[in-house]
Amino acid sequence: MKNYLKHHEWQIIEEGFDPHYNKISESVFSIGNGRMGQRANFEEDYSGDTLRGSYVAGVYYPDKTRVGWWKNGYPEYFAKVLNAPNWIGIHVSIDSQKLDLAKCKSENFKRVLDMRTGLLSRSFAATFADGKKVRVESRRFCSMAHGEIGAIRYSLTPLNFSSKATFSIYTDADVVNEDANYDEKFWEEVYKEASEGRALVTAQTKKTLYHVTTGIHYVIETEGRKVTFDRINVEKREKYAGNVVQMDLEEGKETVIYKYAAILSSENHPKGKLVEACHHVLNESVTAGFDKLFQEHARVWHHKWEECDITIEGDVAAQQGIRFNIFQLTQTYTGEDERLNIGPKGFTGEKYGGSTYWDTEAYCLPFYLGTAEQKVARNLLIYRYKHLQKAIENAGKLGFSNGAALYPMVTMNGEESHNEWEITFEEIHRNGAIAYAIFEYIRYTGDSQYMAEYGLEVLIAISRFWTQRANWSSHRNKYVILGVTGPNEYENNVNNNWYTNTIAVWTLEYALEGIELVRKDNPARLKEIFQTTSFEEGAEISKWKDIAEKMYYPEDKARGLFLQQDGFLDKELLKVTDLDPEDRPINQKWSWDRILRSCFIKQADVLQGLYFFEDKFDLSMIRENFDFYEPMTVHESSLSPCVHVILASKLGYKQKAYEFYLQTARLDLDDYNNDTEDGCHITSMAGTWLSVLKGFGGMRIKDGKLYFNPFLPEHWKSYSFRLEFRGRVIKVKVSKERVETILESGAPLEICLRDEIINLK
Amino acid sequence: MKNYLKHHEWQIIEEGFDPHYNKISESVFSIGNGRMGQRANFEEDYSGDTLRGSYVAGVYYPDKTRVGWWKNGYPEYFAKVLNAPNWIGIHVSIDSQKLDLAKCKSENFKRVLDMRTGLLSRSFAATFADGKKVRVESRRFCSMAHGEIGAIRYSLTPLNFSSKATFSIYTDADVVNEDANYDEKFWEEVYKEASEGRALVTAQTKKTLYHVTTGIHYVIETEGRKVTFDRINVEKREKYAGNVVQMDLEEGKETVIYKYAAILSSENHPKGKLVEACHHVLNESVTAGFDKLFQEHARVWHHKWEECDITIEGDVAAQQGIRFNIFQLTQTYTGEDERLNIGPKGFTGEKYGGSTYWDTEAYCLPFYLGTAEQKVARNLLIYRYKHLQKAIENAGKLGFSNGAALYPMVTMNGEESHNEWEITFEEIHRNGAIAYAIFEYIRYTGDSQYMAEYGLEVLIAISRFWTQRANWSSHRNKYVILGVTGPNEYENNVNNNWYTNTIAVWTLEYALEGIELVRKDNPARLKEIFQTTSFEEGAEISKWKDIAEKMYYPEDKARGLFLQQDGFLDKELLKVTDLDPEDRPINQKWSWDRILRSCFIKQADVLQGLYFFEDKFDLSMIRENFDFYEPMTVHESSLSPCVHVILASKLGYKQKAYEFYLQTARLDLDDYNNDTEDGCHITSMAGTWLSVLKGFGGMRIKDGKLYFNPFLPEHWKSYSFRLEFRGRVIKVKVSKERVETILESGAPLEICLRDEIINLK
Repeated sequence: MKNYLKHHEWQIIEEGFDPHYNKISESVFSIGNGRMGQRANFEEDYSGDTLRGSYVAGVYYPDKTRVGWWKNGYPEYFAKVLNAPNWIGIHVSIDSQKLDLAKCKSENFKRVLDMRTGLLSRSFAATFADGKKVRVESRRFCSMAHGEIGAIRYSLTPLNFSSKATFSIYTDADVVNEDANYDEKFWEEVYKEASEGRALVTAQTKKTLYHVTTGIHYVIETEGRKVTFDRINVEKREKYAGNVVQMDLEEGKETVIYKYAAILSSENHPKGKLVEACHHVLNESVTAGFDKLFQEHARVWHHKWEECDITIEGDVAAQQGIRFNIFQLTQTYTGEDERLNIGPKGFTGEKYGGSTYWDTEAYCLPFYLGTAEQKVARNLLIYRYKHLQKAIENAGKLGFSNGAALYPMVTMNGEESHNEWEITFEEIHRNGAIAYAIFEYIRYTGDSQYMAEYGLEVLIAISRFWTQRANWSSHRNKYVILGVTGPNEYENNVNNNWYTNTIAVWTLEYALEGIELVRKDNPARLKEIFQTTSFEEGAEISKWKDIAEKMYYPEDKARGLFLQQDGFLDKELLKVTDLDPEDRPINQKWSWDRILRSCFIKQADVLQGLYFFEDKFDLSMIRENFDFYEPMTVHESSLSPCVHVILASKLGYKQKAYEFYLQTARLDLDDYNNDTEDGCHITSMAGTWLSVLKGFGGMRIKDGKLYFNPFLPEHWKSYSFRLEFRGRVIKVKVSKERVETILESGAPLEICLRDEIINLK
Repeated sequence: MKNYLKHHEWQIIEEGFDPHYNKISESVFSIGNGRMGQRANFEEDYSGDTLRGSYVAGVYYPDKTRVGWWKNGYPEYFAKVLNAPNWIGIHVSIDSQKLDLAKCKSENFKRVLDMRTGLLSRSFAATFADGKKVRVESRRFCSMAHGEIGAIRYSLTPLNFSSKATFSIYTDADVVNEDANYDEKFWEEVYKEASEGRALVTAQTKKTLYHVTTGIHYVIETEGRKVTFDRINVEKREKYAGNVVQMDLEEGKETVIYKYAAILSSENHPKGKLVEACHHVLNESVTAGFDKLFQEHARVWHHKWEECDITIEGDVAAQQGIRFNIFQLTQTYTGEDERLNIGPKGFTGEKYGGSTYWDTEAYCLPFYLGTAEQKVARNLLIYRYKHLQKAIENAGKLGFSNGAALYPMVTMNGEESHNEWEITFEEIHRNGAIAYAIFEYIRYTGDSQYMAEYGLEVLIAISRFWTQRANWSSHRNKYVILGVTGPNEYENNVNNNWYTNTIAVWTLEYALEGIELVRKDNPARLKEIFQTTSFEEGAEISKWKDIAEKMYYPEDKARGLFLQQDGFLDKELLKVTDLDPEDRPINQKWSWDRILRSCFIKQADVLQGLYFFEDKFDLSMIRENFDFYEPMTVHESSLSPCVHVILASKLGYKQKAYEFYLQTARLDLDDYNNDTEDGCHITSMAGTWLSVLKGFGGMRIKDGKLYFNPFLPEHWKSYSFRLEFRGRVIKVKVSKERVETILESGAPLEICLRDEIINLK
């Protein structure tokens, strides 16, 4: 855990430059706009430790799989988030000395991410070997108003000299992925041009053949006046284009480079029109200018915050933490493009490849439901609908047939990317989360049309998977599901994981409900779906009912426990408090077999099921299981604490709930797991929001009605949150004295606050 | 399955050259002598598909581990059998045309491996593009009499021309491993020299720093007269040294190149003396000459066959098969060097790396016990004794302490090489096989001194491992062993594998016996062992007894079944005959999860236990379990059929026994599993021998006495085998009419034949 960032309600602030923290800061101070993102790398050269990273949404590379031992069924390729062409770079030299913070002495270094406006600023004074000292200020943003525009204001002021400066302002597609399996470069040049003030490179990804055109245009001003040059060197080399200019800097006078970037991908433009479109975007940017672009950008952020802000009074660190999580989630996924999803690192790093995990459905969906217009969450669902055929093919590769679908563990384009058999082939509960997301979306929005339009087809395919995946045990006279990995990935290849069996049966039941819903609302569409899916109504429905009725669940009825899996009670049942702190985190200290046979739990597993299906269990059952499993849980997944906040809150374990909250809220800001340098834990950030809303706020939806059952953590004066709900914006403020519920916009609404019906107007 | 090799009692014969079979033949026709080995590559160039392989026993390379996803505890390096410098090569050109069977037309190609004398011969006529036709004959062997000598007689006879030939005769250390993880070359040059008639390269392995000096010396004769040259070009380049000579070939006259090779490793010579020693060996070889060297070599083979031959009358294919297996085993391991062991591919290929698996103890040991002098088997045991400290370190890396030892799954030097968690960390039954080998050795040889000298220390360390690895289940009131992979590797991470629990308890009991044996025979040594191992007699012994008494075994008592593991009966219990032949072999057709949750068994698991511990179970129990498990067994491991031959024989399932025998006896000759091109299945060859001896022959040792209970497979006229047993050689011949038992040498002996005591004199 680190503590080098200043606490501030709206800003992330780093003061003083410590190269050891640089890669962490590069992740934390990342900016993005849903279409692209950029780590907080320096514009000028930096020869120290850095992970230069720029990402364009949806542009990935299927890197050839690397394994030690091949298992039949592994995907040939692992889809990777692609490090994209560099648009921020400016080489700066003064009297042939490179500006490089690994070599110059720096003073008053300050890096600030203003979350309210999505602006990254940086300032410092650098002293060169010859004693020349220059003050540098940079500001940049990825426009939330125009998804293809990035803009930089980069200024230099000589503090103790007047001399010649050289600026090389460029775009460079000669970038690599740090995690490339075979040290391969993934980009090839298609086209480039460079003229005075402007440069542009179109690069193509190997195999996937995406084109990305990255254009830049710059304007240099000294003391507010545009500088003109007698001579500009146009620079072009492999995958690289730019300009080199020389000018005289005068002591005390500020020179500003405005660099505008247009990043366009063939996902949004015909390949043949990319260059033209790029020039167009650049022209518009230059015409508007940095300040106007920024105003438009800031305006969007202002609006976003109105929808999704959470305030916490009396705890600046907690306030900063929750805003940071909301900020990152909002700039990672805007919901405007149904082809996109939320990568585990968003636009802040490469690690884990792929863009989509079950995190999206299980953790992120409620955040977007609660903080953005309905189509945002809907697009997340449609993303999976569009991958249905691929999911059926994925299942086919594993031996399933008849339209059974297994959604991939990790994916970019619907194909499975991951290659650990115990995860890829066995962590099948993810399929249940895809179904659950349909339920959650309809429950929240009331958009039951979705079932007929898209939902039911997905539910049928997933139900078919469960039907084939379960087998009849003549020994038990029950259906069993063998050889799975549950949400707790510290168990592999177990039989009858309670959570998996539970969500499998729930899926079958929900699919049956779905059929009846569509039968009632839209019988013609039902007929169409049955035809498209070759659904054998009689046989399939009765099989689903049979499985739902005769599923086996491992339980210890005497103790009121649902068992995580068969044989769980054979383990040595220890508590986390029994562990030597030296042994933590166990995933770094213990060999894998030891972890597997221990009772220790990585993240909520039975408890994940109790969270999803809480209405099926009475409070004493939830308490019994929470009290049993929680002490064995090491929370070595960033997705774990939030479920525990929610259940602990429900059980009235307020202090515990608050402690879990602390583990999730500042995970990246404090580099809790010592891995933020690889990128931020974007998907788990949604868990922090869930912790406040469903945990402290006790927010639930039942029968179309909003319920709140809030409490105030001891250390806080108050907290408030806003919620988008069926066309309204509702604000809830919880303080020591009272709970305020305000309808900020939309039609009147009946809600329920601590068992009391309230009419909001 | 292929059928291109001719059936012959003593020879392996390939007629006609089919490039598709070349790599298979390169494996099958491999020669070796326990110190080194050589695939049946061509001496001259071959630009077609080939795996050039030469191997020097004990010289390995720790290649950096490659994984998809790192698991804590994986070894950093994977020890690989190292492809060693080429000593056979002769570049041949006639009028600047290379002799290369991928380019020349070949006629009358014949490759013969004479197993009786260990001689590889090859002959063919080759026609060049210009119509010149030459007859080539080569013979070579790796001397069984002098482990560092290889010799080649390579002759050319121009059939339709007289012209200039160029011979380049060389040694080359610029070789690569086909399975290198990072395409790295593992050898570096240390020294080279080349003079007229002789060349020599000393190469060093990276990291392990072995030196191998490969020297060659050649003599050229035409029509029996030594050819002298006016000019010889000495050739030296990186890692390569040789001579180039030109001479006139005359139509119809045979020119013979005698090439002698001396392959010396720093395992057997001081590094500084290797070159000198190499010259010495070369000098001796040249002085002796090819024919005398061959006579000495053949004499050793003659003697070996006297010890170990099995004859089968009435079935040439079976006769060839069993001799091929015996031949390969004998040339792979001679038992003269306790640092060596038996790699799964011997000297016939690189695959699987490492040299030592549990195959050695479970399958190979009985072969060497039965066919070679006692020290051969003893050296196999001492190999593991010498690795005890490493085995304790291996266990330490997985969290075990107090002198607990886990022998590695795959090793060269005692360190674990393998990196699949489900195997490396969980296939711990291997530890039991190491203990069982001690038992088997003492049972067979009567050398109970071994227990005090070496055995007990190993047993204590393994017992300590089992003690820590089992845990108390308060749920069952029994000890359990969780998270293991049994011999059936088509199950991973199961709980209470019956075989593992059984061999664990057996180890504890045998260690207790061992302590009492040493206490009686050599109390001073016992005290010493207790001191060396810090053995806490009271506490440890009572813990062992407690575990042995209270171990849990999964069973279905009603059906008389030992269950392969917890939950086995929850599977869909199908038979192999239920499978679509299209789905076979399942390990190539099914995804891993499907294999895991199916009931299908790769190789004997419960049955392996019944084989090892048959005296603990009555015949009806063995029958019940055999009848249950055998129909589910796909035998997709080459180690599987032999155990089934033995049990089927015991149960009187004669036809079944014969069918299983066929699966093992000609596995490589007929390329049954389509993978012989990678090398032969050396360790499983011992299973064929076991099948005849313990299966058809019904051979057992009880209380120091030999038992036979033979039957004759229907298709055979007779079979006979020889057995080394406690200083005697016993021959048993089984024919339709009778069973002959003959004491060929050694003191009189009482044996038991079908319940009848016979006194052999």
